[in-house]
Amino acid sequence: MAASTPLLKDELDIVIPTIRNLDFLEMWRPFFHPYHLIIVQDGDPSKTIKVPEGFDYELYNRNDINKILGPKASCISFKDSACRCFGYMVSKKKYIFTIDDDCFVAKSPSGEDINALEQHIKNLLSPSSPFFFNTLYDPYREGADFVRGYPFSLREGVSTAVSHGLWLNIPDYDAPTQLVKPRERNTRYVDAVMTIPKGTLFPMCGMNLAFDRELIGPAMYFGLMGDGQPIGRYDDMWAGWCVKVICDHLGWGVKTGLPYIWHSKASNPFVNLQKEYKGIYWQEELIPFFQSVVLPKECTTVQKCYIEISKQVKAKLGKVDDYFIKLADAMVTWIEAWDELNLLRTTGRLPNGTAK
Amino acid sequence: MAASTPLLKDELDIVIPTIRNLDFLEMWRPFFHPYHLIIVQDGDPSKTIKVPEGFDYELYNRNDINKILGPKASCISFKDSACRCFGYMVSKKKYIFTIDDDCFVAKSPSGEDINALEQHIKNLLSPSSPFFFNTLYDPYREGADFVRGYPFSLREGVSTAVSHGLWLNIPDYDAPTQLVKPRERNTRYVDAVMTIPKGTLFPMCGMNLAFDRELIGPAMYFGLMGDGQPIGRYDDMWAGWCVKVICDHLGWGVKTGLPYIWHSKASNPFVNLQKEYKGIYWQEELIPFFQSVVLPKECTTVQKCYIEISKQVKAKLGKVDDYFIKLADAMVTWIEAWDELNLLRTTGRLPNGTAK
Repeated sequence: MAASTPLLKDELDIVIPTIRNLDFLEMWRPFFHPYHLIIVQDGDPSKTIKVPEGFDYELYNRNDINKILGPKASCISFKDSACRCFGYMVSKKKYIFTIDDDCFVAKSPSGEDINALEQHIKNLLSPSSPFFFNTLYDPYREGADFVRGYPFSLREGVSTAVSHGLWLNIPDYDAPTQLVKPRERNTRYVDAVMTIPKGTLFPMCGMNLAFDRELIGPAMYFGLMGDGQPIGRYDDMWAGWCVKVICDHLGWGVKTGLPYIWHSKASNPFVNLQKEYKGIYWQEELIPFFQSVVLPKECTTVQKCYIEISKQVKAKLGKVDDYFIKLADAMVTWIEAWDELNLLRTTGRLPNGTAK
Repeated sequence: MAASTPLLKDELDIVIPTIRNLDFLEMWRPFFHPYHLIIVQDGDPSKTIKVPEGFDYELYNRNDINKILGPKASCISFKDSACRCFGYMVSKKKYIFTIDDDCFVAKSPSGEDINALEQHIKNLLSPSSPFFFNTLYDPYREGADFVRGYPFSLREGVSTAVSHGLWLNIPDYDAPTQLVKPRERNTRYVDAVMTIPKGTLFPMCGMNLAFDRELIGPAMYFGLMGDGQPIGRYDDMWAGWCVKVICDHLGWGVKTGLPYIWHSKASNPFVNLQKEYKGIYWQEELIPFFQSVVLPKECTTVQKCYIEISKQVKAKLGKVDDYFIKLADAMVTWIEAWDELNLLRTTGRLPNGTAK
């Protein structure tokens, strides 16, 4: 058989945040090799990150981020994998796939290596069905369809903005659950993709995630976490809640399920608990907040939606903790930086005013 | 190993609507034998339905229904499997499992016979999580839990009112899809159970369904279908929309996914098209209607909720077609009959006024 061209070869970047050598890429070589990588180096910029030979990549460390964004670099987290969202911002592609460096190729129940990226692309390129639940899961998959009773007017579906993949072996548990169930492993391969219904929030994990950057990119901000911040491990959650509210408002879909990756090792639950504990109780206010966010119909772009959410965050969550005032400001900075950097491509000027 | 007592042996009835001999029960014998069956004979009451030996059952034909309900028997469909809801009404148990007589025991991917009833019972006895989506599916299953980012205040869950099972082999497609994809078979075994989120409607199929009769029984009315009615094959859908709106209002959960049954043969798509065609276009008005139903807080019981929905059906859908005026009246009759028959147990009087 002739080798086929990999899907979206020139339209997708793989974004990887890391603090270590990227040996994990060896296992992904057959699947990732044709694509361009954007590596965002987390932490000490003087350290050299080794990338296996033969990959096409660009790498940004903290110095690069500061140089490119100037004072606006303050919106990018330091010493936290939340810094990955800088990669989303500097990408020039329509699609992004992001993966953690402790995630390996999983095997299907029949023993084959799972091409996670290919499944994400299939998810993103097929429509979503957020307005009514289909009991046979994704109706656009081969061998499936809409079941009896599914309104015909809704079968065209809507654009898919996000594809959220899952994890075999180490499940994405919070610190309390890790502590209580230290031996639990996810061994259940659920052969399904589904649209998360409109109006329903979900916990978006950044470990194995793809999205349409042109559609939803400006909302994929991973917030202020890590060094100098009171919380961690809520970066992807925060992004997910903002993204879902905006997708619901603009009529786009979010899919979850396949593909699985193999998550190799659990992070330290004691360290995680320290990062999470404020998030765990703040979250009890964040969920009702996001469930009640209403975006006015004037919010016709992701940027407008995001700025509106930042205002509501400041007004309503600012009372919960000053952190949210700082976060709301960073959300605005993020959008400014996004627009400047993406504007640069047409004006030829760097966002800090210097010539390209 | 000692044989264990079947779950809920004295608390669950199996309701089967049929027009033929119940040979299909042979295959289910190991699983259904300990339970009581309620058989509702559809169509000609002079015909004798044979039930394999050894099963504990009661059988009702049209004459029995007329005798028990008197004039209120008008709310029970004739010559349509929608008549099964009479079985829900006369049951004296807390739980109901209903199954079609063309459904057989399916096999799991590892080749074992699936005890569908046992899985339904597990679904009903474990909580639901309708307020937030859990990406690893039912968090109450063994080997699963709530993932990072799931609010702790929501982890207790709520009571599960409905367990909706699926079908291998012949999927539950509408007539147009049957016509377009005559050879499609469902071969995908998805090893998942999940809660359908609050605010999301779904197509509830009556082929393989269990529910908590004490919680939601009075809303499980399968409407007016079949003989003398302008539509068919929307009986279970109608019940599902009413049930979901009421579960959302009263704070109960609806689960879907496992268990699978083996659906042996597709019904005639040409006949189905005739039954469905009005439903297919009415449905385009029904879904927005059910999506916008608001139940006032005074509706604190299923009966009150259901009567309120019947009023809204008459007021809003009555304009779509006179059928909905008749249906709204039948909904009220159903509730009256339900209450009388279930009251009977304490008063000892039959609903038509004769002594027991």
